[in-house]
Amino acid sequence: MAVTGPEIERLIALLSKLPGLGPRSARRAVLQLIKKKETLLGPLAAAMTDAMAKARICSACGNVDTQDPCAICADELRDPHILCIVEEVGDLWALERAGAHKGRYHVLGGVLSALDGVGPDDLNIGRLVERLTGGEVREVVLAMNATVDGQTTAHYITDRISGLGISVSRLAHGVPVGGELDYLDDGTLAAAMKSRRPF
Amino acid sequence: MAVTGPEIERLIALLSKLPGLGPRSARRAVLQLIKKKETLLGPLAAAMTDAMAKARICSACGNVDTQDPCAICADELRDPHILCIVEEVGDLWALERAGAHKGRYHVLGGVLSALDGVGPDDLNIGRLVERLTGGEVREVVLAMNATVDGQTTAHYITDRISGLGISVSRLAHGVPVGGELDYLDDGTLAAAMKSRRPF
Repeated sequence: MAVTGPEIERLIALLSKLPGLGPRSARRAVLQLIKKKETLLGPLAAAMTDAMAKARICSACGNVDTQDPCAICADELRDPHILCIVEEVGDLWALERAGAHKGRYHVLGGVLSALDGVGPDDLNIGRLVERLTGGEVREVVLAMNATVDGQTTAHYITDRISGLGISVSRLAHGVPVGGELDYLDDGTLAAAMKSRRPF
Repeated sequence: MAVTGPEIERLIALLSKLPGLGPRSARRAVLQLIKKKETLLGPLAAAMTDAMAKARICSACGNVDTQDPCAICADELRDPHILCIVEEVGDLWALERAGAHKGRYHVLGGVLSALDGVGPDDLNIGRLVERLTGGEVREVVLAMNATVDGQTTAHYITDRISGLGISVSRLAHGVPVGGELDYLDDGTLAAAMKSRRPF
């Protein structure tokens, strides 16, 4: 039932579509926004209009940025020989925040999934093969999530690019930094033991 | 560290100020927004600009609406003799959703709190007394939260308006509908027992 004006109800309905917000928390957020009209609602409306106008998908790697090619693809100081393949833009941002990778990226835009009907043509794989046949890339790092679909996709890509003479690696499995053995699942412990390193 | 364009980082920073969203979930929300640029980001930006222009606080009761006086105060069919006093606009909306009150409302905009330095002058109490001395209201329903500050405020208001010849009631305390006795706190159980009703 609408308890306030249609413009405000519409804002609540739209906000509740964001991941992490439901109808109730969207309502609370909108009240907060209206309470802080000048300092929050106004700037947020402007920032959204701004992002709407300027956000674009990098045509090379699939990253989200305000320029195309994105800042990472345009950065001459980055190693062009190592390409890190991720599922989603969020994964790219996570690796960037960690400062874990000095090369470039390629965003697939999802994973292969028979259940959800996602095939190779639905992902950004054609463009990936194109980039790799260019000859500049010498190593591909597969940084998919450690899920069944993620690993299936990793295997598929390895198959597709075998024969190009590019070395393929994947992220290490093991004990998370700060993690306690007692709370880890068997699969992770087994993987960590198998990949043990000289100390 | 900024991993994307300044306009997008700014949108993330602003979104993370909403209640219920942190820096990480704001980042995920922004990615979702940019993914659904036409169907979500655009409409949301427009709805915010719209709400920015049209949202206003009702000068009579303190409700948030797109008109002043708000739809509830302007509704001739509502009982003008019963006034329900709530802490925040969210409480008013909750009561309206429940269809629990057929009269009008008055939003205090907070509660008295010695700890937070909130005194009577910081709340919408002067306007309340003004409304009540108008003579139209015959019953006041105190619908503050069942917290120490809420109840303190309720007592203060009762004191302030005693002598106006207005009957004062408060929401019932008791077992929530659908609640199980075993999980209820002692205070609620004692209150429910004390206020037992003929069946």
